[in-house]
Amino acid sequence: MPDIKKILVANRGEIALRVMRSARELGIKTVAIYSEADRNALHVRYADEAVCVGPPASAESYLRIDKILQTCKDLKVDAIHPGYGFLSENADFARQVEKAGIIFIGPSAESIEVMGDKLSAKAAVLKRNVPLVPGLDKAITDIPFAKEKADEIGYPILIKASAGGGGKGMRIVEDPAEFESQMDRAVSEAKNAFGNGAVFIEKFVTSPRHIEIQVLGDQKGNVVHLFERECSIQRRHQKVIEEAPSSVLTPEIREQMGQAAIDVAKSCNYYGAGTVEFIVDDKLNFYFLEMNTRLQVEHPVTEQITGVDLVKEQIRIAEGKALSIRQEDLSITGHAVEVRVYAEDPQNNFLPDIGQLKVYKRPQGTGVRVDDGFEQGMDIPIHYDPMIAKLITYADNREEAINRMIRAIDEYEIVGIQTTLSFCKYVLKHEAFTSGNFNTKFIEKYFQPSDLDEKISDVESEIAAALAVKLWSERKKKQTAQEENDKKVSLWKKNRL
Amino acid sequence: MPDIKKILVANRGEIALRVMRSARELGIKTVAIYSEADRNALHVRYADEAVCVGPPASAESYLRIDKILQTCKDLKVDAIHPGYGFLSENADFARQVEKAGIIFIGPSAESIEVMGDKLSAKAAVLKRNVPLVPGLDKAITDIPFAKEKADEIGYPILIKASAGGGGKGMRIVEDPAEFESQMDRAVSEAKNAFGNGAVFIEKFVTSPRHIEIQVLGDQKGNVVHLFERECSIQRRHQKVIEEAPSSVLTPEIREQMGQAAIDVAKSCNYYGAGTVEFIVDDKLNFYFLEMNTRLQVEHPVTEQITGVDLVKEQIRIAEGKALSIRQEDLSITGHAVEVRVYAEDPQNNFLPDIGQLKVYKRPQGTGVRVDDGFEQGMDIPIHYDPMIAKLITYADNREEAINRMIRAIDEYEIVGIQTTLSFCKYVLKHEAFTSGNFNTKFIEKYFQPSDLDEKISDVESEIAAALAVKLWSERKKKQTAQEENDKKVSLWKKNRL
Repeated sequence: MPDIKKILVANRGEIALRVMRSARELGIKTVAIYSEADRNALHVRYADEAVCVGPPASAESYLRIDKILQTCKDLKVDAIHPGYGFLSENADFARQVEKAGIIFIGPSAESIEVMGDKLSAKAAVLKRNVPLVPGLDKAITDIPFAKEKADEIGYPILIKASAGGGGKGMRIVEDPAEFESQMDRAVSEAKNAFGNGAVFIEKFVTSPRHIEIQVLGDQKGNVVHLFERECSIQRRHQKVIEEAPSSVLTPEIREQMGQAAIDVAKSCNYYGAGTVEFIVDDKLNFYFLEMNTRLQVEHPVTEQITGVDLVKEQIRIAEGKALSIRQEDLSITGHAVEVRVYAEDPQNNFLPDIGQLKVYKRPQGTGVRVDDGFEQGMDIPIHYDPMIAKLITYADNREEAINRMIRAIDEYEIVGIQTTLSFCKYVLKHEAFTSGNFNTKFIEKYFQPSDLDEKISDVESEIAAALAVKLWSERKKKQTAQEENDKKVSLWKKNRL
Repeated sequence: MPDIKKILVANRGEIALRVMRSARELGIKTVAIYSEADRNALHVRYADEAVCVGPPASAESYLRIDKILQTCKDLKVDAIHPGYGFLSENADFARQVEKAGIIFIGPSAESIEVMGDKLSAKAAVLKRNVPLVPGLDKAITDIPFAKEKADEIGYPILIKASAGGGGKGMRIVEDPAEFESQMDRAVSEAKNAFGNGAVFIEKFVTSPRHIEIQVLGDQKGNVVHLFERECSIQRRHQKVIEEAPSSVLTPEIREQMGQAAIDVAKSCNYYGAGTVEFIVDDKLNFYFLEMNTRLQVEHPVTEQITGVDLVKEQIRIAEGKALSIRQEDLSITGHAVEVRVYAEDPQNNFLPDIGQLKVYKRPQGTGVRVDDGFEQGMDIPIHYDPMIAKLITYADNREEAINRMIRAIDEYEIVGIQTTLSFCKYVLKHEAFTSGNFNTKFIEKYFQPSDLDEKISDVESEIAAALAVKLWSERKKKQTAQEENDKKVSLWKKNRL
């Protein structure tokens, strides 16, 4: 395939900028698309060309495949980068892009399809002996058969109604002696609640951690892994803080998980950048959850510890080049942490808090990276994900990276909207986090809105007040200057007459 | 010595902020001092406490040892970080600080003194067999003796008048057969010009590069080196672009220079962070130039390739702690480049261009670090060094780091004053630079002001115009909103009556 000359980024915000920066470093021209709500967005200003593709609603703009392809045709674009979200994991989009003779910077439509469906993904990885959470793959009502299987799987066992949802009809059985009675109750409960007594049984993962492995594959079948990202700090299944490396993995388990991730990628002939997610229990047993067939939000922590620019690698792979990195060339240097800064109010049930970024000053200094798509004076639009920025810190070791993150959070000045920064700081200072002894239940276990430092908003209002005074005095100065100028002009006019 | 609890930074601008950031990450309180010209400076806002020490002129503020020591007493400061410039290499200051019972974050007054004087520095390092540029250490007029010594030293030979200066009476002799006649002429020229025929002779270093080695030593006599910084791109002996590692050193020469730097440090019982400067010829012979007994402007490139926070190390050393890093733990990862952004007009003989930063937007993204002391709307004061910022990029290899730097320069938006960014970009794109085949004569050899891309200022004015329109429309909007509000209020008042 020829070298790419012009990339359209089918996305917005920080990830559009992130992609364009790497493209520019490679000497590739960039095209932005934008909705009417994003006219003044930074990604629009950053791109070499920009095209409005519709009204604010995503379905009418960022998801309009027809308009995106037309823009490519009009502007002679030879490749599309989908970012994350939007069309990034849409196999149909990947297929249409290729059909239009444009390079899709991502995996094949087939890989997206296989991994996009839980059942086909499981079937694919099973052939490569990738570990899955042990359990029965069919719902049953047969209690003696279930007991036999439960003994094989090992306790604790999770029983969940086939027709259930939202935790209803779920039971955790710790003791084999209680299995039959619990199963009996679960089946009859399910029958009463859903009119269907069938239940699934699977191993209950105690103290689960969410750990994922970054992979890169080329179109010649080479795949490497770039170690793990620890993403266990989540709020309602949304990642809040990510880090690399994980503080619990041993070199052996890291190696095993890396190999398993490569196997997952090979099971669907994967190429491009991808992420294999695992659930890890307190004994470091790991089980395949799913594969994300795109760049992840949290990819920067991997870039910081490996020195690899993942977007540049994506582009090179899409050009058909062989991987330039061999597994033995990759190693972990230092420690990186990322916090997601959302326009949400942590003291008000994390409700989105839209509005204007009246003051917006990013932290700086050694080992601090801010990936964002906003600047002071801009509005956070209501139409999209309320993430303002990703704040990443990097240092020689975990303790230093965390201290640097706390320093960077303190330095971040955001006035005008509530953000999750104070919440992130709370987590970073919590003993369970600093000790590394946490799992995906961290927030529900420990967090109370009242835990947040109230001073944050004091500082903010102080800054805002100081700024208001300054702005006012400056405006006053300008006004005075203007008035004096006016006087001079009128004097000059009078004299001239 | 006890742990430091509060540091006064006896400096301003980017380096004051740089030091305070590391202090904060270590949980240490910070005190800023400032002149009347720096009331609104960022380092003043960043510090936990700040004290005005006098009028704008440095001699009346940043150099007032008495006021600095009084501030330490008043605010119970237990350590002073001098930054670079100002009092950083003033042995008397270091001595007074210690006498006042305050920790000086830097070397001993004795080390500063030994290395601050060219003759005592040479004498010290000679005892450790550190190579100096070969030559006679006394001025002579005896031609046959000079010829004998010149043959020992090796050609080319530089003859310079003892009483001369500014290149006057200097001769380079390439061919031994010409030595006597040239020497003859040099002596009589010197006699005529200065009334003194005495001349020095030394080896003429062809195609000289300026390469320096970063060292760290503790108070227990341990010293390590942190590899080199290539600083050959200079304008009138001022560094313009620095990078690490150097593209010419072999691992063997790097090792030898590192060891020589350690020897230099040991020759004066050095502790703290220091830099040993060498001149390197085209055959990679290296000769000691001088030692800087402080943190250097260009220290970030070393931080980027080694992962070591030099300021934190300085603080730990000052606390009396043993070095935590052993030589064998240190290695080079990736490549870093730094450009110094000055408020100077490269198209107008680099005259300082003071004024207001009307637009000031920093570049961002992977591997980009900006160390500065300004923000949008601030004035560049006339009283101090006109450096606005240090822009540092970091990547896996030199080519990528340079491309990233060019991208970052393109992304940097500065409107209101002329800067050296376009000049730096010119150097970075020059074949002599990209090939690594350059020396300290680069700028005089290649640069013409007309080489600079004129488009830079077009882009700037375009941005400025766009911004003006935007500001105006926003002000208009606010005004309209205010007017409508006023109408409502008056209506409400009327209705109430």
